[in-house]
Amino acid sequence: MKCINRLKRGGNVFVIITYDVGEKRVGKVCKKLREYLDWTQNSVFEGQIQKGKLTKCLSELKKILTEEDSIYIYRIENPNHLRKDVIGQNRSFDRIFL
Amino acid sequence: MKCINRLKRGGNVFVIITYDVGEKRVGKVCKKLREYLDWTQNSVFEGQIQKGKLTKCLSELKKILTEEDSIYIYRIENPNHLRKDVIGQNRSFDRIFL
Repeated sequence: MKCINRLKRGGNVFVIITYDVGEKRVGKVCKKLREYLDWTQNSVFEGQIQKGKLTKCLSELKKILTEEDSIYIYRIENPNHLRKDVIGQNRSFDRIFL
Repeated sequence: MKCINRLKRGGNVFVIITYDVGEKRVGKVCKKLREYLDWTQNSVFEGQIQKGKLTKCLSELKKILTEEDSIYIYRIENPNHLRKDVIGQNRSFDRIFL
């Protein structure tokens, strides 16, 4: 198990966003999230971001989504309170250590 | 957007676990995670858990996984530092409010 300590990449809040959206909108949602955060695995994005940018990102996502879709936003104000471990492949290794 | 404040369900650490594993092992991984945490969405589980139980859960998961699989564990020591919001459907609503 690897512990990923270097989560900080600028910005003032760390977010993990997971999505479960209709097939037709997966591409659009992915593209939008990639503008603001790092893809980690399957339907999960993460990253440190400024609060204003997060608000902008969520507002843009809302324009893409329909009622059947679902987006979860986990927000951790201080990334020192977060520990991330990986078992097995770290799919987003290159992105985290940029 | 709905803010889910009542994250506490006992235990002393809040975890979000996401997985990306070979098709043959998805069922087993899901079943194992369900023993300890709540399913939220797609390949994401979450919940408050005792540290000892988390260690046991991860150790049991390792026995199921192969080298190509990937499991991410986000650990937040104090759930007061975490805020969860949902846009759209809250798929795990009944589980969170048990």
